[in-house]
Order: sequence, then C-alpha cells, then structure tokens
Amino acid sequence: MEPLEANKEPTLETKTDKPWEELAIQINSEDPEQITEFLDSISPSDTALAISRLDSEQQNKLLTILAPEDAAAVIEDVSDTQGADLIEDLPPEQAAAILEELDSDHIADLLGELDEEDANAIIEQMDPEEAEEARQFLTYAADTAGGLMISEYLDFQAEQKVQDVLDDLQANREEYADYDVQYLYVTDENDRLQGVLRMRDLLFPSRTTKLSSLMISNPYKVNVDDSLEDLRNFFEEHNLFGVPVVDAEAKLLGIVLPEAVEEANQKQSTQQFLGLSGIVGGEEFRSMPLLARSGRRLSWLSLNIVLNIVAASVIAIYQDTLAAAIALAVFLPMVSDMSGCSGNQAVAVSMRELSLGLVRPTELLRVLGKEASLGVINGLALGILLGAIAFLWKGSPFLGLVVGGALAVNTVVAVSLGGAIPLLLKRVKLDPALVSSPLLTTVTDMCGFFFVLSFASLVLDKL
Amino acid sequence: MEPLEANKEPTLETKTDKPWEELAIQINSEDPEQITEFLDSISPSDTALAISRLDSEQQNKLLTILAPEDAAAVIEDVSDTQGADLIEDLPPEQAAAILEELDSDHIADLLGELDEEDANAIIEQMDPEEAEEARQFLTYAADTAGGLMISEYLDFQAEQKVQDVLDDLQANREEYADYDVQYLYVTDENDRLQGVLRMRDLLFPSRTTKLSSLMISNPYKVNVDDSLEDLRNFFEEHNLFGVPVVDAEAKLLGIVLPEAVEEANQKQSTQQFLGLSGIVGGEEFRSMPLLARSGRRLSWLSLNIVLNIVAASVIAIYQDTLAAAIALAVFLPMVSDMSGCSGNQAVAVSMRELSLGLVRPTELLRVLGKEASLGVINGLALGILLGAIAFLWKGSPFLGLVVGGALAVNTVVAVSLGGAIPLLLKRVKLDPALVSSPLLTTVTDMCGFFFVLSFASLVLDKL
Repeated sequence: MEPLEANKEPTLETKTDKPWEELAIQINSEDPEQITEFLDSISPSDTALAISRLDSEQQNKLLTILAPEDAAAVIEDVSDTQGADLIEDLPPEQAAAILEELDSDHIADLLGELDEEDANAIIEQMDPEEAEEARQFLTYAADTAGGLMISEYLDFQAEQKVQDVLDDLQANREEYADYDVQYLYVTDENDRLQGVLRMRDLLFPSRTTKLSSLMISNPYKVNVDDSLEDLRNFFEEHNLFGVPVVDAEAKLLGIVLPEAVEEANQKQSTQQFLGLSGIVGGEEFRSMPLLARSGRRLSWLSLNIVLNIVAASVIAIYQDTLAAAIALAVFLPMVSDMSGCSGNQAVAVSMRELSLGLVRPTELLRVLGKEASLGVINGLALGILLGAIAFLWKGSPFLGLVVGGALAVNTVVAVSLGGAIPLLLKRVKLDPALVSSPLLTTVTDMCGFFFVLSFASLVLDKL
Repeated sequence: MEPLEANKEPTLETKTDKPWEELAIQINSEDPEQITEFLDSISPSDTALAISRLDSEQQNKLLTILAPEDAAAVIEDVSDTQGADLIEDLPPEQAAAILEELDSDHIADLLGELDEEDANAIIEQMDPEEAEEARQFLTYAADTAGGLMISEYLDFQAEQKVQDVLDDLQANREEYADYDVQYLYVTDENDRLQGVLRMRDLLFPSRTTKLSSLMISNPYKVNVDDSLEDLRNFFEEHNLFGVPVVDAEAKLLGIVLPEAVEEANQKQSTQQFLGLSGIVGGEEFRSMPLLARSGRRLSWLSLNIVLNIVAASVIAIYQDTLAAAIALAVFLPMVSDMSGCSGNQAVAVSMRELSLGLVRPTELLRVLGKEASLGVINGLALGILLGAIAFLWKGSPFLGLVVGGALAVNTVVAVSLGGAIPLLLKRVKLDPALVSSPLLTTVTDMCGFFFVLSFASLVLDKL
C-alpha cells in the first residue's frame, strides 16, 4: 500500500485539454524525466487517451525513451489490447525488459493478446526464470485460477525460523516492495502448501520459533483449474486479501487476489457486450489501422449476410403471394423485427440468470414454460396492436388477421427460442454472447416471413 | 478480515442438487439454526438460486424465522433486485431490523430499488439515527462518491490521545468488528477531515500522544459528488484500502472502498448489456410474477413497434415500385438488417471508447471521419457481394446495381450514425445503452428501404 498523503504541491498546473499534443511535444524533447512527470500528473484514462492518439512511431519512441520500469507503468495504465499493441512493435529484447517489470498475471495477459510468434520472440529475450514462468502461465486458461494468479508471493519452508524470514524480507525488500501481499505462505520441501501466516504473526513470537509452529495450517486454497465462478463464490464467502492456488498434488503455484477476480468479471461483461454487438476477436479501438478494423467487422458481417439470405429465401418462395397482396411487404420487416426484439429480451434474461447462477443449463423446460407463457401474453398484445393497425390502414379484416396472427405466433416462437438458446449454447460450450443473436434473428426472420406469407396464401382471394 | 483457516470438518456432507427443495423442507421445520447452517454450507450463488425458487410465502417465512443478522446475511448473498423483492413483502418493522444489520451503502441500494412509499415505511421503523442516515444516503446519486460510500468508519478528534482511541476501540469492539476499515480518520470539532492514521501507527507511540501529532495530514480524499469515473481513476492511481469522502466544506461524510467502485462498474456493464437487449427499468428474473415481466418487456416493445411503423411507412409510399419489381421484396429486409448490424458495431466501439475515456463526447468529427472511411470499404465489400447475389439470382444487372448500391450507401450512413449516436446521447445525458439501438435501427431501416426503392424507381423499366 502506498502513502496516504496527497501531494502538497499541485502537479497539475494547467490541466491540458489535449494531453496527446503535450505528450507529443515532450516525446520530441526526449527528456524521460519530464515525460514521466507529465504522465504522472494526468489520470490513467488520460494517459490511455494520449497514447492512443500518438502514431505508432511516436508510441515506439515513447517506450524507448522511458526506462523499462516507467514504460511498464505506462502499460499498466492502458487496456491489455492497447498494451499488446504497444509492445508488439518494439524490438523483442526491449519488450522483454518492459514485461519483466509487470506482474506475472499481467505478462501472461499481454502475451496472450499477441500472436504466438511475437509472444515467443519476446519470451526468448526474457530472463530464463521469468521466461519459464511466462511459458507456464500461458498454458492456463484465462478464466481459471491458473490464468488469474500471480507468482509474486512470499513462501518459506515450514522448517525455517522467524529470523530466517525477517532476514529474507530485509535482504529482498526492494523486490518485495512491489508485492501486493498480506500473507506469507509456508510449504514443505516439495513445495506443497502447508500453511499461511499473516505478517503480524511474525512480530511477537521469539525469533527462533519455527514457522511450522506459528502457521495456520489447513488454509483456504483453490485449485489451479477452478473457474472464475468458483473464485467469485470463494471471495464472496471469504473476505480475504488473496487465496493460494495449488495443483492436484497440493503444490503451491501462485495466489489469486480478489482484484484479479473483479477484473476478470469486468472483462467478461465487456466481451459479452462487444460480442452481442458484433465486435468479435477482441477489442476494437479507432486508433487501430483502418483495414484491420474493417476486416474484423466484415468477417462477422459476412456470416450475417449468409444467415440473412437463408431467411430471405422464404420471401423468394412466396413471391407470388406477396405480389398478389403487396401491402404485406410493409409488414414483413415489422413482424421479423418485432419478434427479433422480443427474442433478444429473452436471450438477455437467460444470459443474466445463467451468469448469476439463477438457472442451470439443464433447466430447459423451466425456461420454456416461463417464456412461452409470457410469449402468449405479449404475442396477443402485439398481434392485436399490429393487426388493428393493418386493419385500419387498408380496411381489410383479413389483412389484420394475417399480420396480427403471424406476429402473435412468431412472438411465442421468438421468446421461447430466445430463452432456450443461451442454455443450449452453454451446454455445448459455445459463447452465448457471440452466437445467440445471429442464430435467433435468422430463425425469427424465417418464421416471421413464413407465418405472414403462408397465412396470407390461405386467404389470398380475400386480401 | 476473517480467519485464514478452512473448516476442517466438511460441512457439505451431501451436496444437494436442488438446494431449494432442501431449503423448503427446512423452512417447514422452522429451526433457524439448522437453516443458517444449511445456507452457510452452500455457495452464495446457490443461496441466491434456492431463494429465488421459493414462493413469496416461503421467502417471507424464511426471513421471519431467521434472526435479523442471519436474514441480513441472506440478503447479502443475493442481488439488490432480489434483495429488495424479499424485504418489500415483509412488515416494515421487520424489514427495518434486517436492514440495520447491513452497511449504509447496501441499505441505500436496497431502499433505492423499492418504491418511495415502501422505502419510507421501512425508514420510519428504523432507529432514528440510522433512519436519518438512510434518508441522507438516498439523496446521493447512485454512481457518485456519495452513492457509493459507507458510513461505517472510525473517526476521532485531532485533540484526542492514543489512549482515548484504544479505549474506544475496546469499548465498541463488537460494533467495529464488522467494519472493513484499515484506517482511522481524524477530524476537527466541525467534523472537517484533518488527517488519517493507519491502525499500526497506534502501536508504538506513547499513549498520551495526541492524534494531531501522529496523523498524516492532508490525506487523499474525494468529493461527495465525484463520479464513478473519477473514483475509478483514483483507485487506479492509488493503491489504497479506501478513501474518505468530504463535502464542499471538507466535512467528512463517509468512505469509499475500492470494492464498491468495482461493484458499481460491474453494475454499470450489466445495465448496459440489459438495456441494449431491451430489458429496461431494472433487472428481470424469471421468478418474478408473469404479468410484471410481460408488462415491462411490452413497454419497450411498444415503443419499438411505433419506430417500426415509421420505418415501414417508406415501403408503403413506394408500394407501386415494389409491386412492379417484386424481387426487391426479398432484399428489403436484407439491406435493412445488414445495415443495422454494421451500425451496431460502430455503436459498440463508441460506447467502449467513451467508457475507457479514449474518445470525448465532443469529438464528433473524429468519429465520423473514422467511421465513414470504414463505411466506404465495408459498404463496397458488402454491396458488391449482395449485388452479385442479386444479379446471379435473377440475371438482371440492374437489380444487382440497385440492391448493391443501396446496401453500400446505407452502410456508410449506418456506421457514421452508429459511431455518432453514443457521443450525441452522452452530450444530452441520455443513456446510450437504452436509446442507441432503437434509434439507429429506425433510421437505417428507413434509409435502407428508401435507397432500395428510390434507386429501383429510377430504373424501373429495366428491372
């Protein structure tokens, strides 16, 4: 924890409105101290903003001018996507020097954003011990205890004495200063977790006491492949500053801090939001190259165009019906749009209930029952409304019946399907945020067109 | 902080698959101790699940059987929406007794979810001091320092001595046990913040030392109306366990813990996600009454149906064109759907950049420039693709030109508009998550229909 005192002299003489212009000027002056001072004086989000507005040459120059630890502080202020972008363009040995200043979880996150070749080139330039660790950390899945843990913890042997610990703390105080750790972990000769100690437990006992007699044995721990949900539950139940992570042999591998769990949660929500909106394959910022942004968006859109063709083919089949009652063309997009909206509401409720654990992926019947009954009510309400509008517009009760009936039936289909899709996707381990909406829209479009046009073909002479 | 030791005896003899059935049985047995033991043995998310599956009579009975502090522990395991649902149905004096066991921030969150009448009835039953505080806390906007702070902090007068503090800590140790606080705050006779002390600063000085000579003066602080973004920046820059909140006169009002900021972030993302999907006015769970769920969803859908009518009226105007070239009907929903998808991608990128501070609401030209150029590329790509499909299907180059041209032009409109809308909404203080998508879809539908049909009317004799 850092000092509690606010800086007495205001560092922000003039809060600049365009921090990137100021930063660009300072980069040109090549004075690392002045740059660091400037970056310290603006908020992390302004730092991220300023850096995102530099061109990649200026970004490179900035990270090259700064000492690795100051460059690392810059990387800490920006998102992982932005950070990976920054180090990607640096010579590998320089990137390695900067990464070594970050904590192990963050290193793995950044390397995970790079392509494998770039990541390996950087790892090869790292100190062998850190390289080994980075390779190890990259093998853990992102949203597990292994993917969220850091290796910056203090561990001692059960046979060591209080004096040994104090000596070690003294000798390594510079290295340990960056450790955000409240506990000491005690292991046996095979690195198996034996117990835990709070710092204050060292203050009062005699310095010749063995750790094994001071430590709290049988401490809380989590398994290296425990999921984000397990960790969320753990920290909700236990108000602790961190939890040790062990493998199947009880070997201590790292610790997970509650902040890392919060951050992963936040990241998950963000990906959900972006995925739902069709931004896939990672974050997009407008500072990225135009063709890269365009290509990534197109890849998702071209899947959608195929799905759209499938849905629209229903209209092609019923062309003659439509030509005979052209007023239906006005209602086709309305029925499909409205059903899509109804279905997406059900998708959102299912995704939310799944993430809160309020419904299980196997409880399909429960969800279908709850949604179908709601679908009947909302389908009737919307169907009567749209049917009345159609009737009033053209004075044809049959047009009203066809359009209103189609919307009513399709609403039931859409909400039932919307409620069910996230559960089904979860069961087959697909990401509901990415797949639910295109899948739902295709089916509700198809069904919507089909209901309107097939109902119409039944009463075509009356329309 | 709680003990670090895991329970030695496994409390989960048989991990029940349907915790709500077990809970229902135990509620019928009316043994508060057994119920508490059972709830402690399952995870918070299983507690939330079990409680959501009880009917409201069982829920009432559960909260009535349990002692207020155990009932409060249940409320802590569930979301605010669920918690508000639970206490709403209780007699106000019972609800008040339970609320008094929660921290002030949580009380305000729960009361904020109730309607004013229910909230006031409960507040009136609270201990006068807590009631006063609850009323005060309800006046702060949710996503400000005032809305996120808690009043459970320790403050002493600058003139007090170390011994006074130790006596007070001793005398009130039961009350303070629940305080998640690492610091002591020092104020003057008018409650103005003077300084801060860490607990350990009390251990070594003489017990007659005055706090004013021990405290760290000029501590970090935030203002009561600082925004969530300000707080996020604060805790990103300062690795502290909490920050004091003051009003314009520097009077100490409460403290904000970093966890509260994380939680508010999380809540904001969730609301964004739900709003985008058309779940408005708070969370929906399938355990809520059918008509309430249906009504809330309908309120958003009926706005959408109006917007849909506006968009579809373009088709009505061009009915004759459409009747003359019925193949266009197949492409109308495709053009409007695809443009909607492209526009929503731009909305998502703008919302994300806004929330990270990578773009400012005033930078409309920057966003329009970036999106329009992307729109030209993606519009050309998608337009050529769809145009080719139309040409191949009907063998008419003019059909291909009309359809492809309309999609190309409409893509440029959609992404430019999609990128701009969140910035404009932010400037007029509307929630982009709620308004962007319906607004965008209406305009892109209208324009899509218009481009297809007006281009077609130009070459109608060749189609």
